[in-house]
Amino acid sequence: MTSEFLTRIEKLSETLRRKNINVALIMQNADLYYYSGTIPSGVLCISKENKALYAIKKGFKRALDESPIKQENLVQITSFKNLPNLLKEFSINYSTIGIEMDVVPAEIYLKLKGIFKDSEIVDVSNIVKWQRAIKSPFEIGMLKQSGRLLDCTIEDAKDVIREGKTELEVCAELEFRARKRGHQGLDRMRSFNGEMLIGHVHSGANSAYPSPAQKPTAGKGLYPSFPEGETFDRIRENVPIIVDFLGNYRGYMTDETRTFVIGKLSDKFKRAYETCLEIMDFVEKEAKPGVIAQDLYYKSLDIAEKKGFKDNFMGAKGNQVSFIGHGIGLELDEFPVIAKGQNYALEENMVFALEPKIAFYGEGAVGIENTYVVTENGLKALTKYPKEVVKL
Amino acid sequence: MTSEFLTRIEKLSETLRRKNINVALIMQNADLYYYSGTIPSGVLCISKENKALYAIKKGFKRALDESPIKQENLVQITSFKNLPNLLKEFSINYSTIGIEMDVVPAEIYLKLKGIFKDSEIVDVSNIVKWQRAIKSPFEIGMLKQSGRLLDCTIEDAKDVIREGKTELEVCAELEFRARKRGHQGLDRMRSFNGEMLIGHVHSGANSAYPSPAQKPTAGKGLYPSFPEGETFDRIRENVPIIVDFLGNYRGYMTDETRTFVIGKLSDKFKRAYETCLEIMDFVEKEAKPGVIAQDLYYKSLDIAEKKGFKDNFMGAKGNQVSFIGHGIGLELDEFPVIAKGQNYALEENMVFALEPKIAFYGEGAVGIENTYVVTENGLKALTKYPKEVVKL
Repeated sequence: MTSEFLTRIEKLSETLRRKNINVALIMQNADLYYYSGTIPSGVLCISKENKALYAIKKGFKRALDESPIKQENLVQITSFKNLPNLLKEFSINYSTIGIEMDVVPAEIYLKLKGIFKDSEIVDVSNIVKWQRAIKSPFEIGMLKQSGRLLDCTIEDAKDVIREGKTELEVCAELEFRARKRGHQGLDRMRSFNGEMLIGHVHSGANSAYPSPAQKPTAGKGLYPSFPEGETFDRIRENVPIIVDFLGNYRGYMTDETRTFVIGKLSDKFKRAYETCLEIMDFVEKEAKPGVIAQDLYYKSLDIAEKKGFKDNFMGAKGNQVSFIGHGIGLELDEFPVIAKGQNYALEENMVFALEPKIAFYGEGAVGIENTYVVTENGLKALTKYPKEVVKL
Repeated sequence: MTSEFLTRIEKLSETLRRKNINVALIMQNADLYYYSGTIPSGVLCISKENKALYAIKKGFKRALDESPIKQENLVQITSFKNLPNLLKEFSINYSTIGIEMDVVPAEIYLKLKGIFKDSEIVDVSNIVKWQRAIKSPFEIGMLKQSGRLLDCTIEDAKDVIREGKTELEVCAELEFRARKRGHQGLDRMRSFNGEMLIGHVHSGANSAYPSPAQKPTAGKGLYPSFPEGETFDRIRENVPIIVDFLGNYRGYMTDETRTFVIGKLSDKFKRAYETCLEIMDFVEKEAKPGVIAQDLYYKSLDIAEKKGFKDNFMGAKGNQVSFIGHGIGLELDEFPVIAKGQNYALEENMVFALEPKIAFYGEGAVGIENTYVVTENGLKALTKYPKEVVKL
């Protein structure tokens, strides 16, 4: 475990060296955890010479207990204003500073500009995100366990979904069972305004109600104050019911969706589901190191179009998203994104969730989702529940 | 309901007029909901002439269903680059633009600076936060309902806590029951890295384990990847058990803590609890419109010191926080803050949670918390569970 985190720090410092950035000031919780194994509030300074200095505002004792960073490099501070002197003390040059501009608020950015008047401040968010996109064997172990636990949630749903129960009753019961198995409750998203609970249960027209977020089918939600997930509506027969949940083992997430039905689905929904399966099978066969992310997206879109679902693929008409998959790990929205405009190749040990879904406004949605790791031989599923529509 | 949101928009436009800011570009979910009643992703533009224009990237149909903003002012956009032309079209001047700098990421701030080259961009986060600090009668109605539901959770805890159960089992069961009563699951925090679930259950030494966040007693957590809340440890007799939960009704939160014990507490914990009660009674009597927030904090600190708990008040030694209360509403960390350095007066219809707590590293913590609205006659509690230690 010690070498796991120290290796990550070393890898970041190598990239900083290559990009000629003197020091990265890491401040966001998921990134702090990734590099240090602990999340006291403060700033983790990683230099291009592979020095790590954690300037801690609160939670110092935790860092002593949890982090492999050597003790003399964990330092208590009271204010960001202490940082320049502290960096000097540790002989860390700060003429070029990298911060996570995609998540650090403008206010903190401007404060740092005031404190480091003579430094150039650049964005290291993509450096961090691309490093995190390639999972280590340790991380893949975490994700495997996460996927195993998530399969149990889908199995639970068979037991929990009953006609006449509300979507809320079903969702709350699945959350409860996942929590008791050790799901930490918190699922992190990186993007601004990104919000996510443990999972979604929605059925019929609610599944196709437009999501304001970058999600294909997210449900209507209980209230406009949180516009996704379950409603107080009751589960009925002969409509598709979507269970879209997250596994979470020690912060590492997997994502899985299955479509359930009490009774039977209409021919339109059946054909739509078959199309989702066809796309999943296609990507499972096609994806391997070297394959370009957006090519998988466009070819999947082609399949959906040929089957007549152009206007319904990845969201109801007027509210579609232009991706079919998203990287996942400590955050739900990592690299790689299997989407329009993502002109890069898949690499070994990338992990992503693939979620072909088809939605009809006012009627309902169907879909399937699994999480995979990219191996030299192609995709290997981390979530393994049978792929058919689950009939109850 | 229509007038509720439109009145909020009008009030913001008045402040913008006074501060000579042409237009506020509101982007964060809680603020979007506060001003528009809906949360499609996009930018809500509110001008000093009381014009509201919602430029929507995704979730357009929701805005049509949910928002009282007139239909012709809800406009679909594909990119932030469309904003200057759109504002021109609606005759909204943008020479001075206000954004929520405390939450908007640096990346978006810099992007907006590029798009609005000739505009001055200023911070309106404090304007928004101070407006939101004074609750309307409609909001106080929501908060009352939130408090009622939260009292039920504390009552549930009496039923759920048993010797030998794990903290996780107790916490998950309380979350489950709260969810089934309509808790939306998501509790929002405004501050960078702010993370919170539905509530905390922790006992004995775990309650006093240092929190990395601005929280006095937050628990050790299941894993370092989410450093707060419950553990897998079992509930034992004769140690304090802390249940600190949030009510949430349609996004509006209340906060309540009670200390439970199976068997009895040691004299030290008893005296500490009596001190917490004394501080709560003092603030309940003292707080009213016109009273300075930090005065309440310092006088409470005096009481704790006189009773010998200087090093243990609001967190274990070395990890204390310098507040005793926090504003609450759509976010957990609103104004007013009852804290060191908060040199402003309480006003009618402010709402805050007061949480005197005392912690001993390696031993445990006790405390109590209620949520109050400030009325002209003083504080009125929104959470009303009996104040004694709950003996099981």
